[in-house]
Amino acid sequence: MRKLLYPGAAELAAALERPSAGNREIDLKVREILSAVKGGGDAALRAFSERFDGFAVTSLRVEAADIEQAEREVTPALKKAIQSAASNIEKFHLAAIRSAGDNRTIPEVTVTAPGVRCWYRDSPIEKVGLYIPGGTAPLFSTVLMLGIPARLAGCRDILMCTPPGSDGKINPLILYAAKVAGVNAIFRAGGAQAIAAMAYGTESIPAVYKIFGPGNRYVTRAKELVQLEGTAIDMPAGPSELMVIAGRTAIPAFVAADLLSQAEHGTDSQVIMLTDSRQMITLVEKETELQLAILPRKDIAAQSLGNSSMILLESEDKCIETANRYAPEHLIIATPDPMRAAEQVTSAGSVFLGNFSSESTGDYMTGPNHTLPTGGFARSFSGVTLGSFMKRIFFQEVTAEGIQTIGPDTVLMAEAEMLRAHAAAVSVRLKYIDDEKN
Amino acid sequence: MRKLLYPGAAELAAALERPSAGNREIDLKVREILSAVKGGGDAALRAFSERFDGFAVTSLRVEAADIEQAEREVTPALKKAIQSAASNIEKFHLAAIRSAGDNRTIPEVTVTAPGVRCWYRDSPIEKVGLYIPGGTAPLFSTVLMLGIPARLAGCRDILMCTPPGSDGKINPLILYAAKVAGVNAIFRAGGAQAIAAMAYGTESIPAVYKIFGPGNRYVTRAKELVQLEGTAIDMPAGPSELMVIAGRTAIPAFVAADLLSQAEHGTDSQVIMLTDSRQMITLVEKETELQLAILPRKDIAAQSLGNSSMILLESEDKCIETANRYAPEHLIIATPDPMRAAEQVTSAGSVFLGNFSSESTGDYMTGPNHTLPTGGFARSFSGVTLGSFMKRIFFQEVTAEGIQTIGPDTVLMAEAEMLRAHAAAVSVRLKYIDDEKN
Repeated sequence: MRKLLYPGAAELAAALERPSAGNREIDLKVREILSAVKGGGDAALRAFSERFDGFAVTSLRVEAADIEQAEREVTPALKKAIQSAASNIEKFHLAAIRSAGDNRTIPEVTVTAPGVRCWYRDSPIEKVGLYIPGGTAPLFSTVLMLGIPARLAGCRDILMCTPPGSDGKINPLILYAAKVAGVNAIFRAGGAQAIAAMAYGTESIPAVYKIFGPGNRYVTRAKELVQLEGTAIDMPAGPSELMVIAGRTAIPAFVAADLLSQAEHGTDSQVIMLTDSRQMITLVEKETELQLAILPRKDIAAQSLGNSSMILLESEDKCIETANRYAPEHLIIATPDPMRAAEQVTSAGSVFLGNFSSESTGDYMTGPNHTLPTGGFARSFSGVTLGSFMKRIFFQEVTAEGIQTIGPDTVLMAEAEMLRAHAAAVSVRLKYIDDEKN
Repeated sequence: MRKLLYPGAAELAAALERPSAGNREIDLKVREILSAVKGGGDAALRAFSERFDGFAVTSLRVEAADIEQAEREVTPALKKAIQSAASNIEKFHLAAIRSAGDNRTIPEVTVTAPGVRCWYRDSPIEKVGLYIPGGTAPLFSTVLMLGIPARLAGCRDILMCTPPGSDGKINPLILYAAKVAGVNAIFRAGGAQAIAAMAYGTESIPAVYKIFGPGNRYVTRAKELVQLEGTAIDMPAGPSELMVIAGRTAIPAFVAADLLSQAEHGTDSQVIMLTDSRQMITLVEKETELQLAILPRKDIAAQSLGNSSMILLESEDKCIETANRYAPEHLIIATPDPMRAAEQVTSAGSVFLGNFSSESTGDYMTGPNHTLPTGGFARSFSGVTLGSFMKRIFFQEVTAEGIQTIGPDTVLMAEAEMLRAHAAAVSVRLKYIDDEKN
C-alpha cells in the first residue's frame, strides 16, 4: 500500500483514482454472444456452456429433485446460518415498508387542486432475473440479497441463472439459498449468454423486465448492452471497494483485517484507509503484513493492495469530506464518535460504524443489502432496496369541477408551448360542461 | 389509424409493436461530439452552438439580468399559471415525503439481531443537471417537473442547459420557470454537446452526477453513452405514447382530442385506443377526422396516427390486460367504473381516470410528474419522483454483543464462499473479546 502523509489536493485526487479497465475487446465478444443467443436460443446456450463451463448441459432448467438433493447436502449449521441471514435481511427490507407506509396497496390521495385527486402506487416488476456467478466462490449470500427483496416486493416471476461446474452441478448452497429466498425457477446458464437469455428469452428461459446481480466484465458489459435495448438492470457494476476511516480509537488488527477482507475479492479491488493519526499508519501497515502472510488468497490480496493507499489527513472532518468525495461502496467509520461522523456522510453505499462492525458482517448477516454501487456511483445510486423490484405508477382523477379549476391554466401553458392539440383536449371538455349548463 | 376488430393474439401483438428507430449513424455523430467536448471544453461548445443553433455564444452562463429581463417579458396570466402548476407539483411530491416519513433526516432503526442496529438515510444527489430542449416548442413545463423535485430533495447544485435560438435568446418562459423551480445556474448549450458538458464538465459548466430531461435522438443517445462512463441518467427515453381505454361511457369527442394531443408531439408518437364497444370506434374515428382538420400541427399528427390503432376487444378486462402488457407511458381510463379498472393496472407511467381527466392536464397542472417511462419501460421504471434526486445510504452498527450474535454465522458463510479474509475480519474481533474477558 502506498502511504501518503498530508497529501496536497492533486496528490490526494490521484490516490483516489479508481483503476480503470479497457473494454474494447470484451465489447466485441459480448456483442457476438448476445446476438448468438438472440438467434439461437437454447441451442446457443448449450454450445456456450460446453465451451465456457466445460459441461454439455442437457436440461437447462434445474428440477425440484436437484433442489431436494442440494438441501440434503447442506450441513445443518450452514442451513441455520442461511436462515438467520434471511431473517435479518427480511427484517431490514420490511422496515422500509413499515416506515414508508405500504404504498403497494394503500394509496394516500393528495388533492392538489379542487376536483383534482392524485396518488401513486408502487407496483412489483412482474418478471425479474437474478444472475449468480459460478466459479470458485459460490455467492449464495447474493442469492439471498436479491431473492428476498424480490419476493417481498411481490414480483411474480423470480428466475435465476447460474453456470454449472465442469461436473454439471450447481453448488448446493446456491440452490438451497434460492429455495429459502423464494426463487421460482433456476436455470443452468452463466456469463454473458445468461444475460442474453434473460433479456431476449429462449425456448426454456423466459424473458424478464429487469436483471440483477454481479458478474465478471463480460456479464457487466452484457447487462449494459441489453439495457440499451430495453431490459432494465440493477446498477452499473465495478470492482469492490472499501474505505476505512481509522481514528485514534481504531484497533489496528481490525482495520488490517477489514482492508484484507476487501482486497481478497479480486486483483482489481481497491481499499483505502484514511486517518488523522500518524501512528495508525505504522500500526496498520505492520498488522496487514502479518495477516496477509497467512491468507489462502494472499496473491490476490497482495495485488489489490497495490491499487491501495493509506492516507494521513489533517482531521477527522477532512477524512469524512474525502470519503464523501470518493463515495465508496463500503465505508467503515472507526472513530471516537462514529455516530457523529455518520451524520456527515453524504455519499456511500453502506456504512459500518464502530470497531466491531466489520464489513464482512454486512456481506452476510446484518440485514442491509450487499448489492451496492461501486466506482463512485454511490454519488447517484442506492444499493438494492425493495424499490429496486418495484416501479411507481402515478394516478390522477380530474372531475368536471377539476377541469374547470385547472383547465384554463392548462390551455394557456399548452398554447405557450405551441401544443394546440394539448389545449384543445381541455377546451373540448370545458365547452361540453358549458353546453350542459345551458 | 388502423382498425382491428377482435384481433387474434399475433395480430394484436403486431399492433402493439412500437415503431423502432435505427441508431447507427446517430451513434457515430454523438461519439464525435462527446469526445470533442471532453477535449475542447467551452471552445467546443461555442463551435457547436454556432453550427447547430446558428448563434455565436459568447457567455455560456445566463446572467441574473437576463433572468430579470425574461421575468418582465412573461405575461401576468402565464406567471400565475406557472405558479399554480408549481404549487400542484410541490404538493404531490411533498405528499410522498409525508406518507413515506422523512427518511432524509429521521432514520428509523431496525434491530435485526441483538447488538445489530440498522437504518438508512435518503441523501440528495449533490449535483444534478437538467436538459431542456429548445426549438419550436419551449418546454418550460419540463423545467418545473424536473427543477421542483430537485429542490425539494435538497440537491445542492441544480444546473440547467438549454440551447439559445438563432437570435441568441432563450425563451423567457423557460428562464422564468427555472427561477420559480429553483434552478441554481443556467447555461446556453444544447444537444449532445450539452449532455457532454454536464457529464465531463468544462471551464464554465461544472460536471454533475446525474442528468435529467428529454431531447431528440442525439440527446438521448448522448445520455446513454455518458451513463456507461459514470454519469447517471433519469431513464431511457423514447417517443411519447398514449393508450386510451374507451368504455361505452366514454365521450368520443374527448377521446379523439386526447389521441390527437399525443399525436401532435412528433411523427414517431404512438396512440392506441382500446375499447369493448364497436360503436366507439366509428364515433371516435369520425371525431378524429373532424378535429384533425383544424389543428395547426395536423401534418405531424396525421403521420403519427399512421403508427396508431383502434382496437376492439372482447371485454373491459381484456382491455386492461392489454394495457398492462403494453405498459403505456400515459393511460386514460374512460370506462363506467374507472376506479375499479385503476386497481387492476400493473404497468403504466401515469394513469388518467374518468372522462374529464385529459392527458394534457397531467402534462402541466395535476401534480404528478410528466417525465415518464416510454417504450414499455413502464414495466420496470417509474416516472421521475423525489427519489430520482436522492440515493439511499445504508448504515449498520454492530456492537461487541452484536459481533458475538452474528459473528459465528458470518464466519461459517464466508468460509463456505471461500472468502477466508472475510471470516478472519470477524474472528479477529471475536478473539479480541475473548482475550478481554480472560
